[in-house]
Amino acid sequence: MDVEPRAAGAARPGGRTARTRAAVLDAAWDELESGGYAGLTLEKVAERSGVHLATLYRRWRTVEGVVLDLLGELGKNEVPIPDTGSLLDDLRALALEIAALYRQPRARALVEGVVAAAVRSPEASTVWATVIADRNRLASRIVERAVERGELPPGTDGIAVISAVGAPIYYRLLVARGPVDDEVAETAAAAAHAAALSGVFTPGPP
Amino acid sequence: MDVEPRAAGAARPGGRTARTRAAVLDAAWDELESGGYAGLTLEKVAERSGVHLATLYRRWRTVEGVVLDLLGELGKNEVPIPDTGSLLDDLRALALEIAALYRQPRARALVEGVVAAAVRSPEASTVWATVIADRNRLASRIVERAVERGELPPGTDGIAVISAVGAPIYYRLLVARGPVDDEVAETAAAAAHAAALSGVFTPGPP
Repeated sequence: MDVEPRAAGAARPGGRTARTRAAVLDAAWDELESGGYAGLTLEKVAERSGVHLATLYRRWRTVEGVVLDLLGELGKNEVPIPDTGSLLDDLRALALEIAALYRQPRARALVEGVVAAAVRSPEASTVWATVIADRNRLASRIVERAVERGELPPGTDGIAVISAVGAPIYYRLLVARGPVDDEVAETAAAAAHAAALSGVFTPGPP
Repeated sequence: MDVEPRAAGAARPGGRTARTRAAVLDAAWDELESGGYAGLTLEKVAERSGVHLATLYRRWRTVEGVVLDLLGELGKNEVPIPDTGSLLDDLRALALEIAALYRQPRARALVEGVVAAAVRSPEASTVWATVIADRNRLASRIVERAVERGELPPGTDGIAVISAVGAPIYYRLLVARGPVDDEVAETAAAAAHAAALSGVFTPGPP
């Protein structure tokens, strides 16, 4: 979900509508960095983007609408999937990537905003769940490779392993409300690795 | 967090102010059951409780204020901590309890509302994090007993083990946005157990 800051007025394909949208999403991304989700308003996005407030109300309706559009856009970004040749190292690299992402104030603010929107709106919930499911499916390649190398039993549920890496990080962020440090990431990776090796994520008789 | 429905007008210690609060919290709890957090409004709470809307605005200000007060009240309830004589069985019972709790529509609605409030308000964030920390500290008795029985290495971090049991359940609820079924609970318990046995939650050199 790393996006490079873009010049709000830079030309891009799709004409004026696309440029307006890009300017609004850039402005929202920057506002999340400075004021968090709690401080985000359509007024601030209008001011920073140079787009009329009336346009924002018409097209995105609410702050949640802007945040969701931003999430959908960032969700399209390619994220490198670690491939070190070792399951533990891959899971650790993945966990550290997720933790580093959420140490960025605007990324933390974005996910907080999205979760808040998701519990109010079924549409937001679907967008959010889809972004997470897509990421997890991509990252489950790590588990497939470990099975191919003989590190894990055949049939190990890749989505379950990758979810187990992410879960403690999101728990820290959203439930325990603490810092997303490297320690929580390392522990999450080591725990998911130990559980996978012991066959917890492999269906069938224990 | 199970509370019995209480008669809104029942006498209780603390006089009229306490009775008003009890009526409001009861009404909010029932409204969460029928309409979820997305449907909760101060107007509905006023109507169901028989408390004037003006009183609600004055005392709780927002829906989030009511939800937080409700969480604080439910957080005082005693919750049984499993003590089966086996770490795996204790962790499984705990996970199944948490999952069963969040299959209740009003409990799921409450936690969704609290998380949404927590990302908007530092006060809400503190109340929520405190309730979770208190629960985890109580449940970490499970891990202490396992260490005393010799099932786990001395120095195993009880809070970390208990958090590892809860994390996948909250992940399913808030991030993957799926059903909180017994399977996610059983897997969470088995994974935390395998990781604890392998020493992931024990500090020191690996």
